[in-house]
Amino acid sequence: MKAFESRLVAIETYLKGHPYPQEPAHLYDPIRYFMALGGKRIRPLFTVLCAELFRQPIAASLPAAAAIEMFHNFTLIHDDIMDQAPKRRNLPTVHEQWNSNIAILSGDALMIHAFKELEAYDAIKYQRLSSLLNKTAIEVCIGQQMDMDFEQLSTVSQEDYLSMIRLKTSVLLGCACAFGGILGDASEQQINTLYGFGEQLGIAFQIQDDLLDTFGTEDAVGKQIGGDILCDKKTLLYIAFHERADKREKALFEQYRGMTGEEKIAGIKQLYWDANVLDHCKSIQEVHWKNTLGYLDEMRTVSDCGLFQELLQFIVHRNY
Amino acid sequence: MKAFESRLVAIETYLKGHPYPQEPAHLYDPIRYFMALGGKRIRPLFTVLCAELFRQPIAASLPAAAAIEMFHNFTLIHDDIMDQAPKRRNLPTVHEQWNSNIAILSGDALMIHAFKELEAYDAIKYQRLSSLLNKTAIEVCIGQQMDMDFEQLSTVSQEDYLSMIRLKTSVLLGCACAFGGILGDASEQQINTLYGFGEQLGIAFQIQDDLLDTFGTEDAVGKQIGGDILCDKKTLLYIAFHERADKREKALFEQYRGMTGEEKIAGIKQLYWDANVLDHCKSIQEVHWKNTLGYLDEMRTVSDCGLFQELLQFIVHRNY
Repeated sequence: MKAFESRLVAIETYLKGHPYPQEPAHLYDPIRYFMALGGKRIRPLFTVLCAELFRQPIAASLPAAAAIEMFHNFTLIHDDIMDQAPKRRNLPTVHEQWNSNIAILSGDALMIHAFKELEAYDAIKYQRLSSLLNKTAIEVCIGQQMDMDFEQLSTVSQEDYLSMIRLKTSVLLGCACAFGGILGDASEQQINTLYGFGEQLGIAFQIQDDLLDTFGTEDAVGKQIGGDILCDKKTLLYIAFHERADKREKALFEQYRGMTGEEKIAGIKQLYWDANVLDHCKSIQEVHWKNTLGYLDEMRTVSDCGLFQELLQFIVHRNY
Repeated sequence: MKAFESRLVAIETYLKGHPYPQEPAHLYDPIRYFMALGGKRIRPLFTVLCAELFRQPIAASLPAAAAIEMFHNFTLIHDDIMDQAPKRRNLPTVHEQWNSNIAILSGDALMIHAFKELEAYDAIKYQRLSSLLNKTAIEVCIGQQMDMDFEQLSTVSQEDYLSMIRLKTSVLLGCACAFGGILGDASEQQINTLYGFGEQLGIAFQIQDDLLDTFGTEDAVGKQIGGDILCDKKTLLYIAFHERADKREKALFEQYRGMTGEEKIAGIKQLYWDANVLDHCKSIQEVHWKNTLGYLDEMRTVSDCGLFQELLQFIVHRNY
């Protein structure tokens, strides 16, 4: 990520320098704490890079980039409450460090501050940026609700699953990229291309995440493998397996599901392997990956996109 | 409220006809449910009336009025979770009817839909309206956090209390009124006057609410009297009492605080009465009431404000 270092530093500096009020401490300490936990800042980086395609200096895109990152962090604070997650990036989540009420309210405030960031722009840009963020924000809520609903369902179709990850995670990357185009006064068509690029990349990335959680190595992925299997999460692998497994395989699955730890992980992994679901999921990912590259080709008509190529290489090289 | 009936019907019809998506049901059923619980719709009514001062037809002010009411309802959904309130307008709160996760997420979505309402306006108005709503929304969060912090403090000053109610409840009424001015292309000064009118009225109204909860009659107020005393809420009466009571009175207060039911209410009411705190609180309310009327005089330079006079009469005649 060396090529992006100066941009990532600029994003981090901007986020760190955000003039949140000091008081009330119980409202703003959690926001400062959570925003400082880090993360890859991939979404704001895409805003900055897409704006650069249209010759926008980084200073001009930072407020919009920050809005995306702040909105993303708001969703994480509230999702962590809903998932009762104790940790985020190895540190206590807001509701753990403080309490649920503080996490609800500081999340609310962070969302509003995200929208407020866009006030840096003139009225025309402000309306285009906020309208897209409003639309995206609603889709993210819908995606999160679908994800919660899936937990209660006995079966989820592959189509519904893809629809859920598109809404829950990919549209925000689409929005981040489209922001760059809006900032750079791109044409409607160019903005749609940027949006499609981010959205399709987001889907491919999310599928990769699912696959790595089961078939990655701890060294390469940087976290324990098999978490999704252990908590019976309805990932693409799980869904693809249940759509193609026969009675005997499903019975075996139920047997392994009742187990715990490494035994459960190894058993279900083997079932996935035997049913060829990894290849199937890779082929779905490939579709979205190709869409991404198709959009990238269109973007090349604006500028050479060398940096995007590099960033995609980095993303793709999260290996099995 | 007869004079306002046609406007209230228009507001209700607009709110009821809101094209929320049907799905996911767990996201939008709670929103439809909560928005249908009713309420006085006083805030959107003020937006509509203030816009009328500047000859705006009601149809033009409905989206902005709805944004205010939807934002207000979002705060109620989240506040109900934080207060663990089982009922709202005699029906189960969202987190009771569904669960906390659904209440968090549907609240989030409702807030975003509130912001989205403003997209009905052109870019210049959109920016002015949303910037003011952003600012107000952040203040409301700050006020709510102050209120939660006060529960943990042994003493709260009258100044901090007034500052809390201004942020938690009054700025939104100020915003509702200012919206009318923005919609009607009022001057900056006129918009500030409308804002001041709503804000000061909101403070006077909130103090009245506090006083009625202790010194009202069940018939006139329409709810049980003494709720604030029973849950040891730090109201203006409580704070004024503790700022002026001597050691003996404070000891008596602690004695009554340990009691329950009618005995507790009657004891503490008597203490408030003996210490003359009702008059003191009324004098503070009077200050904000006079400010309100002062702003109303300024508004008369635009139009005759007869309807406002009528509405204020209605509000003031919530008797003891």
